[in-house]
Amino acid sequence: MALDPREFIRQKRDGLAHEPGRLREFVAACAAREIPDYQASAWLMAAFLKGLDARETDALTQAFLHSGRVFDWSRIGVAADKHSTGGVGDKISLSLAPLVAACGVPVPMVSGRGLGHTGGTLDKLESIPGFRTHLEPTQMAEQLQRLNVFMVGQGPDLAPADGFFYSLRDVTATVEFEPFIVSSIVSKKIAEGARALVYDVKCGSGAFMKTRAAARSLAARLVATTRAMGAAASAFITDMSWPIGVAVGNALEVEEAWTVLRGGRTPGTRALTLALAAEMVRLTGAEPDAAGALRRVTRALDDGSAAERFLALVRAQGGDPAALEAGKGLHPAPVVVELAAPRDGWLADCDCFALGELVVAMGGGRRAKEDPVDPRVGIVLACPRGARVARGEVFARLHLAAPDDAFVRRALACFTVGVTAPAPLKDDLVLERVDG
Amino acid sequence: MALDPREFIRQKRDGLAHEPGRLREFVAACAAREIPDYQASAWLMAAFLKGLDARETDALTQAFLHSGRVFDWSRIGVAADKHSTGGVGDKISLSLAPLVAACGVPVPMVSGRGLGHTGGTLDKLESIPGFRTHLEPTQMAEQLQRLNVFMVGQGPDLAPADGFFYSLRDVTATVEFEPFIVSSIVSKKIAEGARALVYDVKCGSGAFMKTRAAARSLAARLVATTRAMGAAASAFITDMSWPIGVAVGNALEVEEAWTVLRGGRTPGTRALTLALAAEMVRLTGAEPDAAGALRRVTRALDDGSAAERFLALVRAQGGDPAALEAGKGLHPAPVVVELAAPRDGWLADCDCFALGELVVAMGGGRRAKEDPVDPRVGIVLACPRGARVARGEVFARLHLAAPDDAFVRRALACFTVGVTAPAPLKDDLVLERVDG
Repeated sequence: MALDPREFIRQKRDGLAHEPGRLREFVAACAAREIPDYQASAWLMAAFLKGLDARETDALTQAFLHSGRVFDWSRIGVAADKHSTGGVGDKISLSLAPLVAACGVPVPMVSGRGLGHTGGTLDKLESIPGFRTHLEPTQMAEQLQRLNVFMVGQGPDLAPADGFFYSLRDVTATVEFEPFIVSSIVSKKIAEGARALVYDVKCGSGAFMKTRAAARSLAARLVATTRAMGAAASAFITDMSWPIGVAVGNALEVEEAWTVLRGGRTPGTRALTLALAAEMVRLTGAEPDAAGALRRVTRALDDGSAAERFLALVRAQGGDPAALEAGKGLHPAPVVVELAAPRDGWLADCDCFALGELVVAMGGGRRAKEDPVDPRVGIVLACPRGARVARGEVFARLHLAAPDDAFVRRALACFTVGVTAPAPLKDDLVLERVDG
Repeated sequence: MALDPREFIRQKRDGLAHEPGRLREFVAACAAREIPDYQASAWLMAAFLKGLDARETDALTQAFLHSGRVFDWSRIGVAADKHSTGGVGDKISLSLAPLVAACGVPVPMVSGRGLGHTGGTLDKLESIPGFRTHLEPTQMAEQLQRLNVFMVGQGPDLAPADGFFYSLRDVTATVEFEPFIVSSIVSKKIAEGARALVYDVKCGSGAFMKTRAAARSLAARLVATTRAMGAAASAFITDMSWPIGVAVGNALEVEEAWTVLRGGRTPGTRALTLALAAEMVRLTGAEPDAAGALRRVTRALDDGSAAERFLALVRAQGGDPAALEAGKGLHPAPVVVELAAPRDGWLADCDCFALGELVVAMGGGRRAKEDPVDPRVGIVLACPRGARVARGEVFARLHLAAPDDAFVRRALACFTVGVTAPAPLKDDLVLERVDG
């Protein structure tokens, strides 16, 4: 029997659960434009307000997944990937992908651009001169075979139904809904061919998930839906109440990642990279023991093979790492302003959301998809969270395209110098682990 | 500041109330297609699920009203009209409009076509040979001036925003929502120029409102919103658990209305016509005393002036009442089948919804807007509700376009012959009065 969109919408409106096959049929018909947008969007709102259960979320994920190409890298190995829900200063993918690849695990990484207050891996990669984030499928296969890693943007053939629904969600105030978020993320990761997935669910002022409960719920559903698609999965909830590492801003973050790849120890970045890498290696079965996996990735970081793989990756995708290798800035900003502590005390708190928004306003992110991004701008912290600072002491440097007092004032307002030391965070920022 | 549709939708999604001016702005922009359908329909679903309060319902009504032409008949008098929420065998408008007009009150009646299980006044009128349900505004004015009455269909310039939203509601499962129903009804009635409105809210098996509570709520909101538009209003909740009068079907109902206009007393039809007419006359202020208003309308029915006005109305709109005047059927059906009581007992119950659906299936109504309607078919009851019948006694006659046993079986199944007499109903079918 043909699907009646009105009946289908009414069912969700009245709080009933869809039969998985019907839900897949509805989504496919919407994406094929056989069902008009106005019916799709009425359903989106009904689902947003009445909920989708686990079976429906899995069905939605499957519908998105099978609307396009699904890569299969099984002849190369068990491919792994990581997805982060987005943070401020989150450059982990840049060090993580080559590190895991250097451990012999294929990493077919498909990333996005920055939108809103968080940055995007593609924008960061493009601050490396010449780096191409588009590869043809045959190039992907060749590079994955040879280097175990590629880092590209999402092609239009990957889960196109998700792209269609995302555009509608964006204009109908139905973005912030867990089942939609989960199906969108998981379908794309499975489509890129990953069979072992680690989710880094950020929690705190700089994250989309402000509460631990929301982060935990999202993490559990990501893991469960990924497993329903037949892949291995686990999730970490990690702290996003302070920028990760020292840098926020596209070129500045690439430089920090390069520092970590060469054995540097910026706070958070190295430890979180290792934790996520070990979990990816463990999930693929390449090293089933957690401690063994951590030893293996630590070795690959410390012996330079991860750094070497990063350079090979950059060159393979047309990039020129000369400035990095020479220790020069990739894109030095014309104006660098020192931020001084307004009083004696401890660097206690950061409004990461405001800081992310500030970097966007400075030109480092985009308001609309078409906006260009300035790779030069951002902020580099000179002191870690919890550091004791004296009045007038420089705790950070703002990298600007031009002098701008308003930006400096906004940057200072993001940080709180407190009268007591804040409770310390774990070095790897991991608040808890969610196994589904 | 320009309206951001996303923000507006989000507001309703989150259960907040819209500022009336913004709501009017949103509706106007949707109707003007400055806001795309998919945003309008997401808002429709959010409103359906989160609710619209009285102020919002009034603002929606105003937005619909002012999207098109608003007639003003004040130079002729205080115009009155009645709206029924739709029943089975509801031919009241046909006798009511000329009766009230004969009492000196202008009745600028704009009616609809049948859709679903209920009939429509326009379809009934068109079973009179030659009757035109479209008049130009100048013709309306001339006829209202001369006869105090016209009966027409809704032109495209009357509350066009309601038409636009109705089309979207129809395909997005957002029809059955009180604030949408109220704003749709009231905006059109105010736009046609009525300043005194009586609502006949049907309740029972043949009505859209199955429960007294739902009917009461709708009635109260219709009255309150009409008053918010500056017009006088009241509502009756009337019984719809048995067909009104004796006939269901287009030509058959016109014949019954004509019988009542000539002083006939089919059960329910005469008394309800008088009750609604008296209320309309009272609300305009032409006869502020209820008992006096009832006397006045009863006189106009009994002295033949209402019948005369009906004939004048039919002729003015191009109709030929010769068959009616000669006492011949307007459109005799080729097949008439007697329905006999299957046992001794009392005519206790009727599934009016099933009966309405049956008449549609027989050709007397439409499934889609474009379907033609067969004026001949329908059913005529030979016995009133509660009548004592003997096994084999004819209690009704089915008028068919061709012999059809399945239709006969379905018709019989609509009626229950019980072992006890049902509780009697008031002659005018009025269950209660709602004054808002």
